[in-house]
Amino acid sequence: MAAVFGGVEGGGTHSKAVLVSAEGKLLAATEGPSTNHWLVGVDRSIEAINDMVQRAKKEAGLDPDTPLHSLGMSLSGGEQKDAIEKLIGQMTVRFPKLSSSYYITTDAVGAMATASDSGGVVLISGTGSNCKLVQADGAQLGCGGWGHMMGDEGSAFWISHRAVKAVFDARDNLATPPHDVTHVWEAMEEYFQVSDLMGMLPHLYRNFQKSHFAGLCKNLAEKAEAGDDMCQYVFREAGRVLAQHVIAVLPGVQEVVFRGDQGLPILCVGSVWNSWELLKPGFTEILAGAAATPKFKGRFHGYSLLTLSQSSALGGASLGAQNAGATVTLDYAANTNVFYRHSFSSQ
Amino acid sequence: MAAVFGGVEGGGTHSKAVLVSAEGKLLAATEGPSTNHWLVGVDRSIEAINDMVQRAKKEAGLDPDTPLHSLGMSLSGGEQKDAIEKLIGQMTVRFPKLSSSYYITTDAVGAMATASDSGGVVLISGTGSNCKLVQADGAQLGCGGWGHMMGDEGSAFWISHRAVKAVFDARDNLATPPHDVTHVWEAMEEYFQVSDLMGMLPHLYRNFQKSHFAGLCKNLAEKAEAGDDMCQYVFREAGRVLAQHVIAVLPGVQEVVFRGDQGLPILCVGSVWNSWELLKPGFTEILAGAAATPKFKGRFHGYSLLTLSQSSALGGASLGAQNAGATVTLDYAANTNVFYRHSFSSQ
Repeated sequence: MAAVFGGVEGGGTHSKAVLVSAEGKLLAATEGPSTNHWLVGVDRSIEAINDMVQRAKKEAGLDPDTPLHSLGMSLSGGEQKDAIEKLIGQMTVRFPKLSSSYYITTDAVGAMATASDSGGVVLISGTGSNCKLVQADGAQLGCGGWGHMMGDEGSAFWISHRAVKAVFDARDNLATPPHDVTHVWEAMEEYFQVSDLMGMLPHLYRNFQKSHFAGLCKNLAEKAEAGDDMCQYVFREAGRVLAQHVIAVLPGVQEVVFRGDQGLPILCVGSVWNSWELLKPGFTEILAGAAATPKFKGRFHGYSLLTLSQSSALGGASLGAQNAGATVTLDYAANTNVFYRHSFSSQ
Repeated sequence: MAAVFGGVEGGGTHSKAVLVSAEGKLLAATEGPSTNHWLVGVDRSIEAINDMVQRAKKEAGLDPDTPLHSLGMSLSGGEQKDAIEKLIGQMTVRFPKLSSSYYITTDAVGAMATASDSGGVVLISGTGSNCKLVQADGAQLGCGGWGHMMGDEGSAFWISHRAVKAVFDARDNLATPPHDVTHVWEAMEEYFQVSDLMGMLPHLYRNFQKSHFAGLCKNLAEKAEAGDDMCQYVFREAGRVLAQHVIAVLPGVQEVVFRGDQGLPILCVGSVWNSWELLKPGFTEILAGAAATPKFKGRFHGYSLLTLSQSSALGGASLGAQNAGATVTLDYAANTNVFYRHSFSSQ
């Protein structure tokens, strides 16, 4: 029997598993619950992984008692070395027929391995934000990801907070907003069901929920799309600061990552990227500025923004195979959509 | 018997009461627990007030069954009209011998009435921050006071947060700090007992306590006084933003408030003012800039920074008397210390 390689994408709410051939042919795909061991514990995490993979073996017509060649897992919460070793140790003992070899990496590395084998930048902007440079060899360099008290710049939380703060500051005469805040206030009234600024205090303190507060961002995006200057301004600022995260990791980028056909690949994850057209003016301006500096001139020729169209379980399978001395060939072009491309040299 | 006037300074942790004559002579002073009705409830609040005042009557050799001419209360949490009316209604019913007349105002108004009868600005910078313009007629205009999620600029929390954020941003290469952050990091290591930035996360989220986080400010003040550029920078920025709160309320200042002997009186409340020498460069620069603008030129001649040397129960007594058609004469000069004075015209 030809070698079969397994991959897992483990998230905080649900997970996916795939089995692929060395040629990257998808043999089976299954889904399961959260496998974030910080959230559900080691036991439930590895049981969920075993269950998904064993079901996938059956789906592919394989003998469940024959171990996979390798199992590569791209897990949210897969950062800490000690915790990873513990997970693998437990899997080996409890599920000896699952796989011959195990590999665990972070969600950022797994996502990047699904999109490219020559590295790039993963730029997350959902409720929170985070940026990881993943080198061709899998090494990482990060910027952000510290949560709403110490960062999250450019995220839905940050966009919502910036807009709300502008309303408070305008009302207090503390800072003049760059544009009229009437429509932002309308969005706040509607979304938080408040009639004055005092009414915002429970949403900020006693009943604060980051994801709920961040939910205002969607309404702000609608106002921006309808032409509101202030909402457009905040998204433009978000684009700027997201680009600044990319610039923060640029000095560490290995030459091979810059040299890809499409320039630096930036893999965009999270719902704020649905508002790309609003982020675009700020984002492109900041990267163009960086590319023109002596530090990056002649090195940083362009960039592509990508989203994944396939599960990062595929990247996990590829990395797991690599770790076991084998190769899974992925069709990167089929796994991604390039939604924006820019070449500085063509300007 | 000559009329006796009572005053209360009601705080979140403890309270004070005074009895004074119409000439402002102190007849008795007592202390008690919190009288913030939001914290302890209406019953405990008014019982504590009654207890302090009745003890003061005995201390002054007065008959406890003879009502005071008036009782004026300067209460933290004394903002909401409905709540104030309820407090006064309950006091009248339950303690008919306490006083013939009642008056309740906010801590900011009471503090200002202790310092001056022609109004001024109260600028609070403790754990949090807040700014209130109190007009000669007691009317108020505010800026800030929305808590750490939406303001608190220039407070101990804000100073600590700014300094810590600079360390995160420097480590992430997201922003170049204006000065070396080594000493800020040392203060963080020492104060939070952490060895890396990951160690800060519990202090920011799971175990977050605003007052504890704000406590770093004291260590930063020590580093600043010892000559650290970055710590000095953050305090200078705090001075700037505190001054911006004053400028935010300036357009509303009545002429009489500007025209005092000492220019605009700014009553400074809270422990961050202990670091005035560190705040000074930023604070004075921003006010000088505002005074030079066409909007304020010829109107805003100078300002004085004051602290109270007496309880704001005195101001409460004065306002309570006024409300009852009487007058308590306070020696404002004796109730305050002017710690800085600046005249723009003398420049």
